[in-house]
Amino acid sequence: MINPNRLLHNLHQLRAFGQSGKGVVRRCLSPVDMEARQWLVTRMEYAGLAASIDGVANVIGYSGNSGGKALLLGSHSDTQPTGGWLDGALGVIYGIEVAQALHDDPATRHLAIDVASWADEESHYLGMMGSRSFCGELTEAEIDAAHNNDGHSLRAALAEYGLDQIPRLHLDPERYIGYIEAHIEQGPWLELEQRRIGIVTSIVGMMDLSLSFHGQQNHAGTTPMHLRQDAAMALFEFVQQLNRAFTEIRGENSVWTISQVSLTPNARSIVPGLAECNLQFRDPDQARLKDMRQCAFALVDDFNRQHEVQARISVHDESAQAVEMDATIQSALASAAQRCVPGGWRHMPSGAAHDAQVLAVHLPAGMLFIPSIDGISHDFAEDSREDDIVLGCQVLAEAVLQLLDADRQG
Amino acid sequence: MINPNRLLHNLHQLRAFGQSGKGVVRRCLSPVDMEARQWLVTRMEYAGLAASIDGVANVIGYSGNSGGKALLLGSHSDTQPTGGWLDGALGVIYGIEVAQALHDDPATRHLAIDVASWADEESHYLGMMGSRSFCGELTEAEIDAAHNNDGHSLRAALAEYGLDQIPRLHLDPERYIGYIEAHIEQGPWLELEQRRIGIVTSIVGMMDLSLSFHGQQNHAGTTPMHLRQDAAMALFEFVQQLNRAFTEIRGENSVWTISQVSLTPNARSIVPGLAECNLQFRDPDQARLKDMRQCAFALVDDFNRQHEVQARISVHDESAQAVEMDATIQSALASAAQRCVPGGWRHMPSGAAHDAQVLAVHLPAGMLFIPSIDGISHDFAEDSREDDIVLGCQVLAEAVLQLLDADRQG
Repeated sequence: MINPNRLLHNLHQLRAFGQSGKGVVRRCLSPVDMEARQWLVTRMEYAGLAASIDGVANVIGYSGNSGGKALLLGSHSDTQPTGGWLDGALGVIYGIEVAQALHDDPATRHLAIDVASWADEESHYLGMMGSRSFCGELTEAEIDAAHNNDGHSLRAALAEYGLDQIPRLHLDPERYIGYIEAHIEQGPWLELEQRRIGIVTSIVGMMDLSLSFHGQQNHAGTTPMHLRQDAAMALFEFVQQLNRAFTEIRGENSVWTISQVSLTPNARSIVPGLAECNLQFRDPDQARLKDMRQCAFALVDDFNRQHEVQARISVHDESAQAVEMDATIQSALASAAQRCVPGGWRHMPSGAAHDAQVLAVHLPAGMLFIPSIDGISHDFAEDSREDDIVLGCQVLAEAVLQLLDADRQG
Repeated sequence: MINPNRLLHNLHQLRAFGQSGKGVVRRCLSPVDMEARQWLVTRMEYAGLAASIDGVANVIGYSGNSGGKALLLGSHSDTQPTGGWLDGALGVIYGIEVAQALHDDPATRHLAIDVASWADEESHYLGMMGSRSFCGELTEAEIDAAHNNDGHSLRAALAEYGLDQIPRLHLDPERYIGYIEAHIEQGPWLELEQRRIGIVTSIVGMMDLSLSFHGQQNHAGTTPMHLRQDAAMALFEFVQQLNRAFTEIRGENSVWTISQVSLTPNARSIVPGLAECNLQFRDPDQARLKDMRQCAFALVDDFNRQHEVQARISVHDESAQAVEMDATIQSALASAAQRCVPGGWRHMPSGAAHDAQVLAVHLPAGMLFIPSIDGISHDFAEDSREDDIVLGCQVLAEAVLQLLDADRQG
């Protein structure tokens, strides 16, 4: 039903917009990103969709078919600063291929598929800007405030392409059976377990905290150990306490990361007076996420009762809630996967955030993963096997047909 | 014998060169540092010394008196980027005051005191440049290679003041009984124990190591905990092992410090693939310093046998050897202190490095400390009580007389 050659050809066509070695540099609202969006509009039009770029650079193609609800397929075509060629592009091109395949076949031409490429999933200006705007979760004030790392404002970027004159498109939940997003796994599990399809059960919630430790800067030669208020040593000790505590309350899929540390004054012979770090944790269970947050705050209280160096903790970002994927969509994806690759698929949570997290609050939503070679993503080296790329689209198309048929029959 | 008003007046005069609030900014070979050196030359000349600035900016005043060996007194008049007003300036002005007092008194005018202000103790271009040059430990190649943090070469800085045309002065060990350096304590001990004079028994040796932890950079959401090679977590764990091991082998005066940490790529949602830190430790016992070094290297070997993340360790600097202060000079300082402030002094090691560390390899050397208010140093807030400043100079002068008398009688 789907056309593997056309699918791969379109993926490579999209890759050409911003290609750099094996990877792609296609930051949202860059010239090459906007060229890619124009190209996506024409691809959607070929597939029979009424497509346009909306006021925040979402590319959305609507089916004109009536007589039943539609399925919304999509992902994002913007990339990280040094991005992989598949990442979100895969789900966008899958959506276009499924729409094209249904459109080309007289037996399925009446079915309704809408396809979206959500703007700025990768947070060049505002993370998940497009899907949040579409779902009515993005305020004008947020758009006013957003700048990229070069200090360029989102408003100015939108105006450069005339998007300030174009309305933002919004979700009509009544129109849809649900939303399905395909994506590369970005992790090692499928490859490790030799599965070729992942059916996402939930998308992890994420919490970003900031920690700081306030001691006393002093001479590293003349200040005896027992009189020091060494902010760095306090941070190192706290992390060990945190690791012990999180290990006790963790679930199967909990992860936590400290990836940013700063010591002040950062001089070779001076005991640091200030140490700062981030703490990010993720879990598919929103309740456990809250437990981990509570645990971190309680550890800070305990720490401060026992130490002269005082720790402070604050929430940097808690916008990504854990969400469950829709059972019916999971089930349709699972039957399709079982038909296409018996025993070669698995259910799994998504450890990464996706636009589906935003859509899932408003619509039944599902996600399908294909394996990432060596689990690498957000890197020029990111890749997937061609037969997995094709298989994923086949599974998606079959699940889409099953869901649309069920809707029209039900 | 010494003149307290002249002593304090001269200290305040020197403070005026580069004064900033309560502190001083007088980096070696800056214009204001050179003005201060010219002023020191005139002060030394008033005290009857033949004084000049040598080819690396040392100010050295020689006594013309013969008939016995001389004592060399001094310290350094350059400061940290945001330095205290006393620091090394105290020992230089003490030297000049003692020389002046002996010169003014017909009974002592025949005694020989030389006074030095060593260049760049604070390492703007080359740490302890002046004392190392004087002791024959500074090569022309080192001078060629030295730059300050702004990239300005030492050679260019010396040429700006015509110092490239002036020879470097060198130590004649036969000339001296020994070297005595007075300095503020830069630590809390004297104040905590309500002592007013510290007589240094040894100057700690120092070793600077560099550590790096090499893991695998990865996605902080999709990489499960047990598959991570998290370089930051490896560093945190190693530090705990190091703290336990060093606590077991430490001596009374051992200190160790981790004051610089760098994580790569230092991004909120990426498991760090590389973590780096410094490790500095100091001890008055050179043997223990070697034990600590051996211990750190052994811990890295153990760590690498047990972890996928691999640690590397290297020596950044091990130039500061632990040295003992001369027993005769300690004894002269102790009797002088006991006469001036009975019971109000103590023996103690120096946790900071000093020019005396360089001189002590070539001459009998001693050091005298006065209390630092709140133990603060290398900071604009650094200060000492006026009565302690005066007392310190009295003790030095009495010890100097005793040593010179003993030499002439012996």
